[in-house]
Amino acid sequence: MIDVDGIVRIIEERKAKTIGLQFPEGLKRQGPGIAKDVEARTGALVIVSGDPCYGACDIDDSLLDMVDVLFHFGHSRLMDDDRIVFIEYHHEVEVDTAIRNALPLLGQKVGIVTTVQHIHMLKRMEQLLIEAGKTPVIARGDSRITYPGQLLGCNFSATPAGVDTVLYVGSGNFHPMGAQLSTGVPVIAADPFTGEARKVDVEKIMRQRYALMAKAMDAKKWGIIIGTKTGQKRLELARRIKETAGDATLISIREITPDRLLSFKVDAYVSTVCPRVAIDDAGRFGVPVLTPVEFDIVKGLRKWEDLAFDEIKGE
Amino acid sequence: MIDVDGIVRIIEERKAKTIGLQFPEGLKRQGPGIAKDVEARTGALVIVSGDPCYGACDIDDSLLDMVDVLFHFGHSRLMDDDRIVFIEYHHEVEVDTAIRNALPLLGQKVGIVTTVQHIHMLKRMEQLLIEAGKTPVIARGDSRITYPGQLLGCNFSATPAGVDTVLYVGSGNFHPMGAQLSTGVPVIAADPFTGEARKVDVEKIMRQRYALMAKAMDAKKWGIIIGTKTGQKRLELARRIKETAGDATLISIREITPDRLLSFKVDAYVSTVCPRVAIDDAGRFGVPVLTPVEFDIVKGLRKWEDLAFDEIKGE
Repeated sequence: MIDVDGIVRIIEERKAKTIGLQFPEGLKRQGPGIAKDVEARTGALVIVSGDPCYGACDIDDSLLDMVDVLFHFGHSRLMDDDRIVFIEYHHEVEVDTAIRNALPLLGQKVGIVTTVQHIHMLKRMEQLLIEAGKTPVIARGDSRITYPGQLLGCNFSATPAGVDTVLYVGSGNFHPMGAQLSTGVPVIAADPFTGEARKVDVEKIMRQRYALMAKAMDAKKWGIIIGTKTGQKRLELARRIKETAGDATLISIREITPDRLLSFKVDAYVSTVCPRVAIDDAGRFGVPVLTPVEFDIVKGLRKWEDLAFDEIKGE
Repeated sequence: MIDVDGIVRIIEERKAKTIGLQFPEGLKRQGPGIAKDVEARTGALVIVSGDPCYGACDIDDSLLDMVDVLFHFGHSRLMDDDRIVFIEYHHEVEVDTAIRNALPLLGQKVGIVTTVQHIHMLKRMEQLLIEAGKTPVIARGDSRITYPGQLLGCNFSATPAGVDTVLYVGSGNFHPMGAQLSTGVPVIAADPFTGEARKVDVEKIMRQRYALMAKAMDAKKWGIIIGTKTGQKRLELARRIKETAGDATLISIREITPDRLLSFKVDAYVSTVCPRVAIDDAGRFGVPVLTPVEFDIVKGLRKWEDLAFDEIKGE
């Protein structure tokens, strides 16, 4: 549930006249209803962002420039800007069933990781493991990470090292695969929505990635993609890749789509934007789109067996 | 041909270190080659915009923020910003054949309009009409228009009034239809690329638009789309429409796509962005997307017979 009272309070405190609301895809449909509610209770003019939003790295800067306060929903704080209010979204779903199903798959010393949607249940996760006689370990990530035990799709720094197993509580494949590739420790994924638990398999994704890298070894012309989203700009990294690549063009893109990539006649791309783009959308692109880690492997700067997901690190 | 010497000169004069290049779709493939050339000759770092670009209204602000100078190709100057250099693209194609084929369709007093791609041939167009015994008329548009006789897809103010026929020299349907609807004068389109001339027919497009307006009359929930592109922001207009619409949400969108519109459960949209979006892409949207002019007709603020294309006016 989104706390409209809290939003109204902030608007009144700040005497804000123009308000922006930005939702991730799953919450967007609630936009018009919340906008109407907020307008009726505060008299402020509300504008809802209609552009895609995939994370706290993905602030709608254009909308931000038009409003006094931007409420960004569903993600934990990533940058400090007084004009942006981050409003997390916590799923009201219990984790007990999924964790009980995970227990037989876990070792003794278990690192716990999850996403912000379930972070309020972290104590409960820890307690369930202790009750089962396990030794839970929760680590603090780098400066990009708000909570102990929290993963982002671009940052697995809160994954504990020196454990027998990592328990990922949440849905989806990307986060647990990233955690496994970044630590080498086997990851068990427990999904609170289905109650199911399973061992995470990274083999299929690795096979795909190696095939793309092999194809990119023939590339003569490269495109190096620079993101323009606030939390995804890695210009220095792009510049370094360009120097290694040889015949390469720096290309800035906001949303990466197959037709935007087809506009340029290059043989392969390296994407320095959100690490998920190269991997999640690989099947949609006509040419190989590599992560910076994969580019280093292709250029012999990193060993083939050291494949990991690209991460955007904090400090 | 793009004048790389001129670009190099500007970079040297300004001692610019980081350069942006922004091309419309038709010129994008030239991006990597020009970038390479400019880098080799100036030592500057060049970034090419990979986002779509539909006009001088569509400046890549994110790229602009990363560079010392942004070269924007293919469109005439629309706004004054010292960091942006507009480089027009003039097609090297003769207009004689198309105009000769147009002659039998023209009245005595003929208004001439064209796009920036052919504007350097305006004198030749005038001369051909004089030689054929016609009386050519060329008008100056409002402040959004750089050259006498120049049309934009969002501005037909240079279309002369009080003439028997308007002669449009250029390709495409949108500009001549807009010119005809804005003046009520019959328009003859002469296409220099094919050499053909024809009478412009607005009936089909009007039938489509009336059908969409009829459908939108049942709309209960409205979405009012605000553009975030520099030259397409019409917040005051959007606010005015919202007041008339009743149950309406202001939604900011950068690139309008069918799936972005489907994210919100509204019955119809009014688009205050580039006027072409509502019309060119009508068939792709699941719900009616009206222009502000059409919204006024639906709400009884304008007569049904006064349908015109939406324009973004200058002063």
